[in-house]
Amino acid sequence: MTQKNVAEILKSDSILQEVHVNGWVRTFRSNRFIAINDGSTINNIQCVIDFENTPEDTLKRITTGSAVSIKGTIVESQGKGQSVEIQVSEIEILGDSNADEYPIQPKKHSFEFLRENAHLRVRTNTFSAVMRVRSKLSFAVHKYFQENGFNYVNTPIITGTDAEGAGEMFKVTNFETNKAPLTEDGKIDYSKDFFGKETSLTVSGQLEAETFAMSLGKAYTFGPTFRAENSNTTRHLAEFWMIEPEVAFMDLDGNMDLAEDFIKSVLKDVLETCKDDLAFLDQRLTQEEKSKPQAERSEMSLLNKLKFVVDNNFKRVSYTEAFDILRNSKPNKKKKFQYPINEWGADLQSEHERYLVEKHFKCPVILFDYPANIKAFYMRLNDDGKTVRAMDVLFPGIGEMVGGSQREERFDVLVDKMKALDIDEKELWWYLDLRKYGTAVHSGFGLGFERLVQFTTGMSNIRDVIPFPRTPQNAEF
Amino acid sequence: MTQKNVAEILKSDSILQEVHVNGWVRTFRSNRFIAINDGSTINNIQCVIDFENTPEDTLKRITTGSAVSIKGTIVESQGKGQSVEIQVSEIEILGDSNADEYPIQPKKHSFEFLRENAHLRVRTNTFSAVMRVRSKLSFAVHKYFQENGFNYVNTPIITGTDAEGAGEMFKVTNFETNKAPLTEDGKIDYSKDFFGKETSLTVSGQLEAETFAMSLGKAYTFGPTFRAENSNTTRHLAEFWMIEPEVAFMDLDGNMDLAEDFIKSVLKDVLETCKDDLAFLDQRLTQEEKSKPQAERSEMSLLNKLKFVVDNNFKRVSYTEAFDILRNSKPNKKKKFQYPINEWGADLQSEHERYLVEKHFKCPVILFDYPANIKAFYMRLNDDGKTVRAMDVLFPGIGEMVGGSQREERFDVLVDKMKALDIDEKELWWYLDLRKYGTAVHSGFGLGFERLVQFTTGMSNIRDVIPFPRTPQNAEF
Repeated sequence: MTQKNVAEILKSDSILQEVHVNGWVRTFRSNRFIAINDGSTINNIQCVIDFENTPEDTLKRITTGSAVSIKGTIVESQGKGQSVEIQVSEIEILGDSNADEYPIQPKKHSFEFLRENAHLRVRTNTFSAVMRVRSKLSFAVHKYFQENGFNYVNTPIITGTDAEGAGEMFKVTNFETNKAPLTEDGKIDYSKDFFGKETSLTVSGQLEAETFAMSLGKAYTFGPTFRAENSNTTRHLAEFWMIEPEVAFMDLDGNMDLAEDFIKSVLKDVLETCKDDLAFLDQRLTQEEKSKPQAERSEMSLLNKLKFVVDNNFKRVSYTEAFDILRNSKPNKKKKFQYPINEWGADLQSEHERYLVEKHFKCPVILFDYPANIKAFYMRLNDDGKTVRAMDVLFPGIGEMVGGSQREERFDVLVDKMKALDIDEKELWWYLDLRKYGTAVHSGFGLGFERLVQFTTGMSNIRDVIPFPRTPQNAEF
Repeated sequence: MTQKNVAEILKSDSILQEVHVNGWVRTFRSNRFIAINDGSTINNIQCVIDFENTPEDTLKRITTGSAVSIKGTIVESQGKGQSVEIQVSEIEILGDSNADEYPIQPKKHSFEFLRENAHLRVRTNTFSAVMRVRSKLSFAVHKYFQENGFNYVNTPIITGTDAEGAGEMFKVTNFETNKAPLTEDGKIDYSKDFFGKETSLTVSGQLEAETFAMSLGKAYTFGPTFRAENSNTTRHLAEFWMIEPEVAFMDLDGNMDLAEDFIKSVLKDVLETCKDDLAFLDQRLTQEEKSKPQAERSEMSLLNKLKFVVDNNFKRVSYTEAFDILRNSKPNKKKKFQYPINEWGADLQSEHERYLVEKHFKCPVILFDYPANIKAFYMRLNDDGKTVRAMDVLFPGIGEMVGGSQREERFDVLVDKMKALDIDEKELWWYLDLRKYGTAVHSGFGLGFERLVQFTTGMSNIRDVIPFPRTPQNAEF
């Protein structure tokens, strides 16, 4: 007898084949129909038992959440919703699940409740679908880069560099709390800590990835990054996974092409590989939308939104053009923006990005050539002396999906900028070396993986697309 | 004119095609032959310039490490070692490299020196080969699991759980050093830290991965893990990448099969995808071995070692059998072991593992059924009451490559074990839940990725197979 998983059985046309399957009971009705799921697919296999010849004691133990081992015959199903089912010849209860205590009942649970039970929420349809899509999307990311000649680089998580400037950092230490040794002049003696210096959790692998681009040509990171920011929103995590490609001899135009092609390719990939899960999530979102007021509902279903992104060009707009659109927009004139758009150079807020993407262009937008003074030190200065070759990719419902730039490759210009911003040259000696020895035009971007998973799955809270979210006041599990 | 990378040009049979290539100068000799590398392959493309018609100033700037843009015609090469070369029609210096200052000279550098220049060492043949193999090996890992129905799970890096027991942990905090607030009774008030509790960097994603195995069936992690141990050896890193598959309904035998099949598959994969790089590393190692005394030299070349592992079964031996072999071994009888093998139950040291693998069996060995008291709390107790269903995969020259086990799936047995070891049940409530609701046999293992890269590339120091190693007193870059 062959052991098979549920996905294999449902795909099989092996009617009358004997089969062995292990899984967990989702529902058990009429003392006869057991819906079994083993995580291999969102679909259950219906197993029909002969309750008259099954011991009463066994029947009682077939409860939601219990683990069972089933042997039987694959037959055509009489019921709706499945083509095959299993006629059970033998059932063994591997692990019980007390129906009164089991937190995951066969009913709708709030996402808040499920977050508190993150160790069990993957046993629900929604979260198993989200986590399978997340897994396939990760693989699509690796596939895209590997097939396009990129080298995966694991940049360090623990870093002694705090010049990246992307946000607040968590400290990493081996000192006993409140008992760090002091130097003679009363300062913390970091030379006695594990790494002999002050260390933190990385906020970006970009600077290190640049060293790989300037030797291997094309590199990408895909690893965890951290922000010690007290942002209790549906869009922020203290620990999240970031994708950062970096390419030598590529300018900002190439960078925009890469970002657009990358996002379209991985979405196209999962539209193929995650058909069942995405169909389920599409329906889930449509149901959820129905509870919203008409005006707040999305115009497109999840699947249509994904296909729309795959099939349409991203709109490329300079900061200056976007600024003009915003300044002349209705909400700006009617003073509906919390931050009115008056002077060129202002940083764009979420409300402005949403207006551009959701109201004005109604498609993903790439903004580029931002004012230098609102962007990071390493971005390449344009000849106008006031803008830099930066780009942000903005997505409907998500906001910033990608932030990137052409990097400042000119040693003198970079050093001047660092001086102006009081960034220690000694600390970034190695980063400057890249401009000293064989410098060249190069570019790259960062994409927050969880935002991509959010967009792909239609989940509105970022805490619901990562297995065990880390947020202020929460590091459970 | 098509822009191509060096790998494409060397593979092409497009003689007389016009081509544009960007890269870095490796060597420049006779004012005529420039060897260009762009990281796409270990091989250089020879570019032949007409020095009589090239400005003196340009010629001077063609130095090792400089970035150049070259246009020309692909022609058959007259020289040895390459089939095609480029007849240069146009050369532009993109970025200079001062020959007197550039640390990476066209000569042999010590690995110590290159570690201090980790931002540039990828520009050498050895490290570019190692890092390309590392990238391809990563992808082989993902491919193996994805093609076999596993779901990639990103387990948390910051953890509030310190019960994993795999080693010393780094603290993660947002408190100002030596200024953590105190509670009324003078203890550190962790409720005021970012996560509202004491947090550390994970030593393993296993416990969390189990929650995914017990819902999705098959899961794997591949992410960074940490050890705050003061081990200044060639085998230890404070930050390293770990691969941890976890499978429901699989026992220890299945686990051994999985580990063996996994390692063989990924090695087979890179033997195909990394031919040039592995051929180079094979030669490098052979050269290096020549400088060793005959007795210390490896019997097999790197490529032969890899093929040997792919083609031969791993030897599976119980701890008790291994114990007998060791007790009766020559070195034990002649008191050559630092830790003599006398009593059953002793933990095996590196010297014993090496004897088994390198002297006795001369192949990878899987040891299983270890004494319970030298293994972790979550390993399944055998019916003998004194051994657990643990396994270690030992590799020649590397030692422990894999550590794994069947997990204790019985609630009562697990709770008793935790009590005996003083592990807080309240902290691991969610881990115990897995045994309360639908428990089942399940197993998994952990594989230190850098040790696999070491074995694959033949590099003797683990610091040379990770881009930016973190070790005691070192977190540079």
